[in-house]
Amino acid sequence: MSAYRSHTCGQLTAANAGNEVRLSGWVHRVRDHGGVLFIDLRDHYGITQVIADSDSPAFATLEKLRAETVIRIDGRVKLRDASLINPKLPTGEIEVYATETEILGPSDDLPLPVFGDQDYPEETRLTYRFLDLRRETLHNNIMLRSKVVRSIRNRMWDQGFTEFQTPIITASSPEGARDFLVPSRLHPGKFYALPQAPQQFKQLIMVAGFDKYFQIAPCFRDEDPRADRSPTDFYQLDLEMSFIEQEDVFATVQPVIQGLFEEFGGGRPVDTNWPRIPYAESMLKYGSDKPDLRNPIEMQIVSDHFRGSGFAIFAKLLEQDGTEVRAIPAAKGGSRKFADRMNAFAQSQGLPGMGYIFWRKAEDGSTEAAGPIAKALGDEKTEAIRVQLGLGEGDAAFFLGGKPETFEAVAGRARTEIGRELGLTDENQFKFAWIVDFPMYEKGDDGKIDFSHNPFSMPQGGLDALNTQDPLTIKGYQYDLACNGYELISGAIRNHSPEVMFKAFELAGYGHDEVEKRFGGMVKAFRYGAPPHGGCAAGIDRIVMLLADEQNIREVIMFPMNQRAEDLMMGAPSEPTNEQMRELRLRAVPKE
Amino acid sequence: MSAYRSHTCGQLTAANAGNEVRLSGWVHRVRDHGGVLFIDLRDHYGITQVIADSDSPAFATLEKLRAETVIRIDGRVKLRDASLINPKLPTGEIEVYATETEILGPSDDLPLPVFGDQDYPEETRLTYRFLDLRRETLHNNIMLRSKVVRSIRNRMWDQGFTEFQTPIITASSPEGARDFLVPSRLHPGKFYALPQAPQQFKQLIMVAGFDKYFQIAPCFRDEDPRADRSPTDFYQLDLEMSFIEQEDVFATVQPVIQGLFEEFGGGRPVDTNWPRIPYAESMLKYGSDKPDLRNPIEMQIVSDHFRGSGFAIFAKLLEQDGTEVRAIPAAKGGSRKFADRMNAFAQSQGLPGMGYIFWRKAEDGSTEAAGPIAKALGDEKTEAIRVQLGLGEGDAAFFLGGKPETFEAVAGRARTEIGRELGLTDENQFKFAWIVDFPMYEKGDDGKIDFSHNPFSMPQGGLDALNTQDPLTIKGYQYDLACNGYELISGAIRNHSPEVMFKAFELAGYGHDEVEKRFGGMVKAFRYGAPPHGGCAAGIDRIVMLLADEQNIREVIMFPMNQRAEDLMMGAPSEPTNEQMRELRLRAVPKE
Repeated sequence: MSAYRSHTCGQLTAANAGNEVRLSGWVHRVRDHGGVLFIDLRDHYGITQVIADSDSPAFATLEKLRAETVIRIDGRVKLRDASLINPKLPTGEIEVYATETEILGPSDDLPLPVFGDQDYPEETRLTYRFLDLRRETLHNNIMLRSKVVRSIRNRMWDQGFTEFQTPIITASSPEGARDFLVPSRLHPGKFYALPQAPQQFKQLIMVAGFDKYFQIAPCFRDEDPRADRSPTDFYQLDLEMSFIEQEDVFATVQPVIQGLFEEFGGGRPVDTNWPRIPYAESMLKYGSDKPDLRNPIEMQIVSDHFRGSGFAIFAKLLEQDGTEVRAIPAAKGGSRKFADRMNAFAQSQGLPGMGYIFWRKAEDGSTEAAGPIAKALGDEKTEAIRVQLGLGEGDAAFFLGGKPETFEAVAGRARTEIGRELGLTDENQFKFAWIVDFPMYEKGDDGKIDFSHNPFSMPQGGLDALNTQDPLTIKGYQYDLACNGYELISGAIRNHSPEVMFKAFELAGYGHDEVEKRFGGMVKAFRYGAPPHGGCAAGIDRIVMLLADEQNIREVIMFPMNQRAEDLMMGAPSEPTNEQMRELRLRAVPKE
Repeated sequence: MSAYRSHTCGQLTAANAGNEVRLSGWVHRVRDHGGVLFIDLRDHYGITQVIADSDSPAFATLEKLRAETVIRIDGRVKLRDASLINPKLPTGEIEVYATETEILGPSDDLPLPVFGDQDYPEETRLTYRFLDLRRETLHNNIMLRSKVVRSIRNRMWDQGFTEFQTPIITASSPEGARDFLVPSRLHPGKFYALPQAPQQFKQLIMVAGFDKYFQIAPCFRDEDPRADRSPTDFYQLDLEMSFIEQEDVFATVQPVIQGLFEEFGGGRPVDTNWPRIPYAESMLKYGSDKPDLRNPIEMQIVSDHFRGSGFAIFAKLLEQDGTEVRAIPAAKGGSRKFADRMNAFAQSQGLPGMGYIFWRKAEDGSTEAAGPIAKALGDEKTEAIRVQLGLGEGDAAFFLGGKPETFEAVAGRARTEIGRELGLTDENQFKFAWIVDFPMYEKGDDGKIDFSHNPFSMPQGGLDALNTQDPLTIKGYQYDLACNGYELISGAIRNHSPEVMFKAFELAGYGHDEVEKRFGGMVKAFRYGAPPHGGCAAGIDRIVMLLADEQNIREVIMFPMNQRAEDLMMGAPSEPTNEQMRELRLRAVPKE
């Protein structure tokens, strides 16, 4: 027999009654019921109840056990009394009467209890991560993450993709965020960088003719602390394909992601209809480029009803170029109390407020519109708005006006708030949408044109569009996948033509030399037969968070940094030795 | 129809004759046979022959194509004449008559031809890696590597292991090699390190109760240039298990590795008998702790025959403590010519030479021993040696004497040389052995005791052995897997007891404080219920090299560094910007 176990702690059932067995695991909990010890013995696979009374030679040792001590026990499997069966445990029908025991790993008093899974300060949890990881919820989250990654890999292989590992010690990548640098000892004064993403490498893999690449890829960004992201690195499902168009990427990705959510979503419905929503439409209808489609509210433009109307604020606003009034229809929101709460919400978000109309039953039994806007607009325009929005008695509409970019984001958050408050949003499901037709360029605060997203995307209309269109009207073959209000995936058809690329960069103010300097490796590669290609990257951490229903990224990472980018368990970062600094020919500059 | 292809270039067969098809790919080769163009169109999946004559509207474009241009063609599938069928190609029965074409990615003149796979300088190959990777052998090697990694993953999952990713930005790990450091911007003056291996993390995963871990893990070491290794990083199959003993690790690993070699070894026989060979025995018999068992030669101790004998050199040598004479039996090596060549080999390896006896047919038809040693020893002792070694007419034996550590390595290399020269080694197979019972400690040149391998291994005999035995006689639960003369795997049962660990370090001269300082995270974890655990790590690059029959690690890595740790394609390492140095609060120290 093995020195440690004949069975795991999740394995024994009534079928084993009478067997002599050996188990090893952690002492999860000990209860002393008048001279009979009940020990929940836990391992990765489950919990088995071990009992010992004073007749057992193991009793003296077991009696003194601290929680989380690792022990081995030998004993005999017994059926529990019917009244003591625990149907929640796979091992709930049996218990093991211990006849012998050995302490394999003693435990000091615990800084963090494992049993009970109660809340504890994050600093403690991260410092004693090895204890935290024994706790049920986190243990399950980490296992879920592994299973999700495995499933992704299998799904990608099944679709004909091959996983390649790209370099981790490499050159600075032009993703726009801050690189982590790695000093070179062999080349003093020079530095490597950790990749922000394998963007250039995956494109080079396509140029190298590999056709369908994927990777569960670590990505490194030296980020300033923010609650909902890792300050150092994250993982993405990175993929790239040759000889494809945008819809081919969608057709590849949907079965992978949909299948994943069906497999691990805990039975929550997974919508199989993934609409393509142009960026502009998404911003209009949902006030976001990652709309939560679980929320049925779609905003609409209602400018015409306000133009030259008696509601002077909007009427005057609309005289300026580029302004609009948009409405958020709020079915079942037709009460002054709710309307006022939403108005206050808009104010909390930095807007002067949010006008509204709501429709109620009048004293004569008919439907009447209420609120100051209705009064100022008059019956006819108010009714026209109601008809346009498809609302009725008991409903409300909220209005935001101005240049869309000034209120769109708040409108989006208000839509979310309204959907949630009114119970319109069925949260227990997954809804997806491809957001497409992102603008290639945007105007910065300084009035200069720059890339709005990925400079490596192929502009729609190609060189022609770059040569003839107003840059701000050019769209890219660039797309995101939104799920429940989060951006799960971002991708593009790439610009594989050096000619088109130089022109695209020129419009954003980058000269030929600078493009050569920053992206020389890739531009050079494109000169020797580059295939049309495209792909995307999906955030693994985000996917697992959605599946595990967690809000904090550190709940789905085994050994996360804290928000200050410190590893409290291993003590990183730390002071280098003088010898290390000497070898790297580096000197720290003291704080001024 | 897709904009780019209806089929891949490896897909069309006689069954498609008459079909209108669309293909995209690289122009592998163009031949002009008197006005008829034969174009080998290549993609990841294969090669299809495309033809065009002057009647084809595509002719004018196709005629001018440079090699490696990416094109799309539309055309009709035709059966080849029986005499033109190429049975080596899956598409060899057909060709496609092109009616239309489009250039998708033009190509400049190539610095490195793809067609032909001929040898080219490595600097060119690394600078234009995207072209090199299109060439058949390298393309296949990289695909093999991916498939091997995939197979490893599946085999590990099937055995109940779970893959977890451990941090890449972390604290210095005490593996003994040089760390790559990563300066922290948020904590100026402090540094992270890239992990030399996930050693501490995988042990913490066991302490966290996950039971069976594996990872295809990137490992980072700032190595000095050496031809046969990557100067920056390598990948290993890292695994760890709880509640197991050494033989459990072997039972887990053998099916994985054996299955892998059977799956990808190209039909070369894979020996299923994996002997356990104690380290001392391996050094004696094979002169190596990673013996090549394809070579049947086993060395033997023959000191007794030389002690006090007429062969004065060895007789005198043997009067010193700790000396030995060992013989390398060389079946079929019985000629003076061969014996002299081996003697010269030993001299080339820094030894004064290698004595020998060989047995030949005497003029009277009997077997006689020849060579100066035989003469000096006399018939009786010479015959006793022949009998011990099981040799006969036509065979030879070579002798090395002294303290074993002074000649063991050369003896091992001579054994390899002899096995190869005499054709005793059947190279066309894979033979494995577990090398076990490594000594825990060794005496350095300075006479100090230090760990000979991994300080985290459990000493055989535990605390008792540490307290009572001469450290140099203590063995560890530490093991390697040797395959065909390479170390494929290294592993150990870990020391999971802080008490035993402090004692083990004390014997190597490390005080309590230093252990706490260097390995504090792990020692702390062991105080809260650590399970007995162990594992190993297998070198992925080495496995793929063996399977692909490649000698250079850069032939099995997609984007390798050159030997000077430079990425010639991406231009790494490079000068940082002043802004980057300022943010990191670092200054480069100029060369003196």
